[in-house]
Amino acid sequence: MPSFSATTGGASHDAPIGRSVGCVTPQIAHFDAPLTLACGRALPEYDLAYETYGALDDARSNAVLVCHALNASHHVAGWYADDPDNLGWWDNMVGPGKPLDTDRFFVVGVNNLGSCFGSTGPVSINPATGAAWGSEFPIVTVEDWVDAQAQLADRLGIAQWAAVMGGSLGGMQALDWAIRYPQRIRNALVIAAAPNLSAENIAFNEIARQAILTDPEFHGGNFEAHGVKPRRGLRVARMIGHITYLSDEQMEAKFGRQLRDGLKFSFAPEFQIESYLRYQGEKFAEYYDANTYLRITKALDYFDPATRTDGDLARALSPATCRFLVISFTTDWRFPASRSREIVKALVRQQRDVSYAEIAAPHGHDAFLLDNAQYHGVVRAWFERIASGLRASESQG
Amino acid sequence: MPSFSATTGGASHDAPIGRSVGCVTPQIAHFDAPLTLACGRALPEYDLAYETYGALDDARSNAVLVCHALNASHHVAGWYADDPDNLGWWDNMVGPGKPLDTDRFFVVGVNNLGSCFGSTGPVSINPATGAAWGSEFPIVTVEDWVDAQAQLADRLGIAQWAAVMGGSLGGMQALDWAIRYPQRIRNALVIAAAPNLSAENIAFNEIARQAILTDPEFHGGNFEAHGVKPRRGLRVARMIGHITYLSDEQMEAKFGRQLRDGLKFSFAPEFQIESYLRYQGEKFAEYYDANTYLRITKALDYFDPATRTDGDLARALSPATCRFLVISFTTDWRFPASRSREIVKALVRQQRDVSYAEIAAPHGHDAFLLDNAQYHGVVRAWFERIASGLRASESQG
Repeated sequence: MPSFSATTGGASHDAPIGRSVGCVTPQIAHFDAPLTLACGRALPEYDLAYETYGALDDARSNAVLVCHALNASHHVAGWYADDPDNLGWWDNMVGPGKPLDTDRFFVVGVNNLGSCFGSTGPVSINPATGAAWGSEFPIVTVEDWVDAQAQLADRLGIAQWAAVMGGSLGGMQALDWAIRYPQRIRNALVIAAAPNLSAENIAFNEIARQAILTDPEFHGGNFEAHGVKPRRGLRVARMIGHITYLSDEQMEAKFGRQLRDGLKFSFAPEFQIESYLRYQGEKFAEYYDANTYLRITKALDYFDPATRTDGDLARALSPATCRFLVISFTTDWRFPASRSREIVKALVRQQRDVSYAEIAAPHGHDAFLLDNAQYHGVVRAWFERIASGLRASESQG
Repeated sequence: MPSFSATTGGASHDAPIGRSVGCVTPQIAHFDAPLTLACGRALPEYDLAYETYGALDDARSNAVLVCHALNASHHVAGWYADDPDNLGWWDNMVGPGKPLDTDRFFVVGVNNLGSCFGSTGPVSINPATGAAWGSEFPIVTVEDWVDAQAQLADRLGIAQWAAVMGGSLGGMQALDWAIRYPQRIRNALVIAAAPNLSAENIAFNEIARQAILTDPEFHGGNFEAHGVKPRRGLRVARMIGHITYLSDEQMEAKFGRQLRDGLKFSFAPEFQIESYLRYQGEKFAEYYDANTYLRITKALDYFDPATRTDGDLARALSPATCRFLVISFTTDWRFPASRSREIVKALVRQQRDVSYAEIAAPHGHDAFLLDNAQYHGVVRAWFERIASGLRASESQG
């Protein structure tokens, strides 16, 4: 059971290594067979939006699934011909010569069910009514997402992932793959995640939901029929979320008590941090769907594999057979390192193959998305080990 | 320069000691002379609501001012004849035989200007218009509050406070008294406070303000004229604030992932923490004024005595001549111990008389309001020292 833990002083050479995957094209997979959900309802049919980078090898053994967190999508790397500035959210991680090297691996990004970027969700048409699902769209769970991702894997002819990888809520999906589809995953990369949400995590989500639910323009989720959008609620929800993504230290270093233009004794933005948060909120309210936000925060709240084993996380993880890489960041207070260590300890108790890296980074929870030589080095080494396993089985084959 | 620092393992005997001050009666002091405010405007006249407990001694030397934090008031201790359940917010601290012993001290609680519990604020009548001030009420500062408190001290015949004491925003007022009225204060008790707000602190305040400002029933602050109240915004604002008052650990211990009645796959409250926060939000929205909330959070954001000395806190504190007791709590993440230590270090650099206690308590920022034997013991000892100084000067007199 190889295991390592590294916390450095943070010295790093952060120039990104590797190239971009370049121009990419999203695809849609349509599924006619109903998908039964954790809530007991079923989606009669559904679409999954996805992107792939690199080539699937002849043995179909080099596929890596990248799972997204709250507000991201299947657009993991590269850009679009008609939108060259829209860079994939993990473009620094995925590409030729990058830590997850698309010269070696076939990488799949998929938009989760209930999201608003092409997969079936509240903004999609409900075939039963001919109108958008809106508030009628069910509350989906991490398990539902993974079940749908398994359908996509079947469609793509991938019997077993070389790895499933994700940060934050994406890491929870990797964990669920390991537990519920143990035969279909050889490696799980669980980054900046937790085995479940704490009371404080749920509290932040609930406040964000209340901001949306009580916005008069939410109209019980049927705002589209009223030709409006609950922008106020979305703005506040995003501002709340944003605080939990950044570390206190980083916010202090970046904004501190800097003023824009002196004290005005008014409620217009005066401190730079106020402008920044308002801008983030505005931007988010323009592109994100309120019904989606409500559902994705619920999926976060619900995730708790240990509920199936009377709260015993080690026992919950016992079906898993893959190798695990767990990574946390020192200043992450949304999912602190201690939560990642709960996963590691449970895996060790189960005598599973787990490696753990605690990365010194000032950027809080957001660190999992940012360039950091040590972090990227750990991920790169992990995938190099997987790739050499692939080469070994090729030469045996 | 006596100084001590104590962090214990948290062993404490928390049975409250002492009796209640009993039934109390709030009073109103009216001031006809205008009060010039930091914003440049002046209040033409104003009321201050206050309460007193204990008796002023002949030398008028045993008076203690207790300053309140965000949503509290002049009702520090005891209860009202017509509302016996309405216990003062610091009743465990102030009373006969309590740490601030009203058998020895004459204690004054005062509602700050701009608040909504009897002192002049947005809900008061603007004499110029005959209608409620509402959005026209100026943004007031900690300095404005202290200036008004000084007027009340004059009215009560108190030339010098034996002590000014407060927690959180109340501690900032004690600090301001020490700096700007050095001749009028012999002791400053600065509890669970900070020399200014961090970027993250401001961010939380700004989100709470945005929730209120964007509530359609806020009507630019003139909601009273529309016969409504921005309850949604106030609810969300209070929920956000509440998260910052509790420690993560305490929230986990109290609520964890407990469900009320199983998962319902709906947006009704499912986790206990959700019910708790909604209840706190509802309660607050009923009794608190939105315009007041906006102004008091601004007073917090603006407080920064070191702006007068180019950011040098030690120099900002140089006018102070009183003795300081600074207290922080180990799990307070709103104003962490490190922020209190900034004050202590600046006072030490200025060679001022400062004692510091870091109290091990699981309750986060709220700890300053709760029973804790070590904390109350430190405050009790401080006031006993002041009282013996009073007795010494009596016997000399």
